[in-house]
Amino acid sequence: MIKTIDIQKLLAGDRRTVARSISFVENENTGAEQFLSELFKHTGKAYRIGITGPPGAGKSTLTNKLAKYYRSQDLKVGIIAVDPTSPFTGGALLGDRVRMSEVEMDEGVFIRSMASRGSLGGLSKKTREAADILDAAGFNIILFETVGVGQSELDIAGAADTTVVVLVPESGDGIQAMKAGLMEIADFFVMNKSDRPGADQAVMSIKMILGFRPHDEHSWMADVVKTTASEGKGIDLIASEIARHKEYLKQSGTFEKRRAGQLRSRIEEIIRDKFTMTFWNAERKQILDAGITDIMSRNNTPYHLSELLLKS
Amino acid sequence: MIKTIDIQKLLAGDRRTVARSISFVENENTGAEQFLSELFKHTGKAYRIGITGPPGAGKSTLTNKLAKYYRSQDLKVGIIAVDPTSPFTGGALLGDRVRMSEVEMDEGVFIRSMASRGSLGGLSKKTREAADILDAAGFNIILFETVGVGQSELDIAGAADTTVVVLVPESGDGIQAMKAGLMEIADFFVMNKSDRPGADQAVMSIKMILGFRPHDEHSWMADVVKTTASEGKGIDLIASEIARHKEYLKQSGTFEKRRAGQLRSRIEEIIRDKFTMTFWNAERKQILDAGITDIMSRNNTPYHLSELLLKS
Repeated sequence: MIKTIDIQKLLAGDRRTVARSISFVENENTGAEQFLSELFKHTGKAYRIGITGPPGAGKSTLTNKLAKYYRSQDLKVGIIAVDPTSPFTGGALLGDRVRMSEVEMDEGVFIRSMASRGSLGGLSKKTREAADILDAAGFNIILFETVGVGQSELDIAGAADTTVVVLVPESGDGIQAMKAGLMEIADFFVMNKSDRPGADQAVMSIKMILGFRPHDEHSWMADVVKTTASEGKGIDLIASEIARHKEYLKQSGTFEKRRAGQLRSRIEEIIRDKFTMTFWNAERKQILDAGITDIMSRNNTPYHLSELLLKS
Repeated sequence: MIKTIDIQKLLAGDRRTVARSISFVENENTGAEQFLSELFKHTGKAYRIGITGPPGAGKSTLTNKLAKYYRSQDLKVGIIAVDPTSPFTGGALLGDRVRMSEVEMDEGVFIRSMASRGSLGGLSKKTREAADILDAAGFNIILFETVGVGQSELDIAGAADTTVVVLVPESGDGIQAMKAGLMEIADFFVMNKSDRPGADQAVMSIKMILGFRPHDEHSWMADVVKTTASEGKGIDLIASEIARHKEYLKQSGTFEKRRAGQLRSRIEEIIRDKFTMTFWNAERKQILDAGITDIMSRNNTPYHLSELLLKS
């Protein structure tokens, strides 16, 4: 039996339908792809913002406050929070989702946590699909929140129109941010907990590194915004920096180019996932199982077995 | 013309041949796969150690000192340092590779930096292949050093026998380490710069979270080791914790299981990469290019275009 979702109810923004739609897609139920395909023409209106940074930078608090800010402007906000799932806690110990409750009671805010590990299929595919659902349901702003300086934040940068990297004075200097690959993905930086010692120095060192980037009068100049999210300080500065970046994207034509690039990598991901799913049938899994022993004993190599599998 | 590498010289541990071999494989030259396949039977002897953690935790210094420690035991050490490459610096600004020079002059140490971004093919494939080359060349210990709490350190955990997560008191508490997904990948933790305030508290909070893991008398119990790598303090503790973990892996039979699992995911990766390379021929790239406009205007969907491409 094919489970169905009432698309009209979703387009009307019905919260229960939104929640059911995301689960439907996340669990890769039969018909999920057709559902997403039907939905697709109703997407593309929401502005998508990625919020990333190291653990403990205060991303959840900041996301919460930013959602409240957009609510005060009567915009509907969807939040997709990506957490690595711990197999022994299932994320239940996490306090953040509790802190989120300030906006959770608001009908104009929809929060969804997604696990970055052990999920079926790619995370970036799942988060983008959830964003499409929120987009179609009339949410104006979508906030992706993710921990990390690795693949998950690259995925977020690939799904967002504007990517905000949140640091704290303790995160280290500009050189370290560069080493962690944050310079490439940040459309701008937020120095949170900026009432702590060393904040000005940290801001300076990031600005200095940003200044090294080759640029002309037409390029976007990433800046650093100072906040104390827990006290709500500087949230308006983040919002206006996002607005400035959006304006730049639109004026320069980068907006269309970015979105086209995102759709392109999305298609590549869909194709890779489909290949993997169809390739690893029972027969090929058996060949792999049977072949591992010979590889362990160095009587065969991973390359030969791969050839064999690809030819089968 | 097919470039060739003298395998006998490589097996004899000739440094220039090691360097050439890694470049040969990294650039995916014709014959690279056959070369790796021939090499494979000479691999599996080296012990592989992953060293990861947030930027600024002192991983490079610690790796350097650990290499020196193993040298003092007359073991040959290969270091594979994974850095995100900055397109505007090419990594040239980084100071770490300079700090490494203490061991770089040593004939028994081989250091190779690899870029985690923009590389052809998967990073985990490349780092494993470089490790195989070092392994075949007679290096006894291979240290993988990587920044991050994302994909790259998951890759490292998937390539290493023992994974060490390096933190500093400023990295935050156990809950934050858990949120960043570090609990799952750490075989043990190192609290570096442990002379700084808050170190004992940070160690305690990680131990507490570790204690929550379901375990019996047969399970490995991850611990936290305190170091001040810059002064060489605690390096012997890391080495003995690695030895204890190795002993556990061997005694419990986990060692063979881990390595079999690693070979399995390696084969899956080889197959995925080969599919992607053959799939995206000129014709299909053209279909994708031509199709993006209709998707941008919502007259087609990524799902339909993917279907079309897969059928072509």
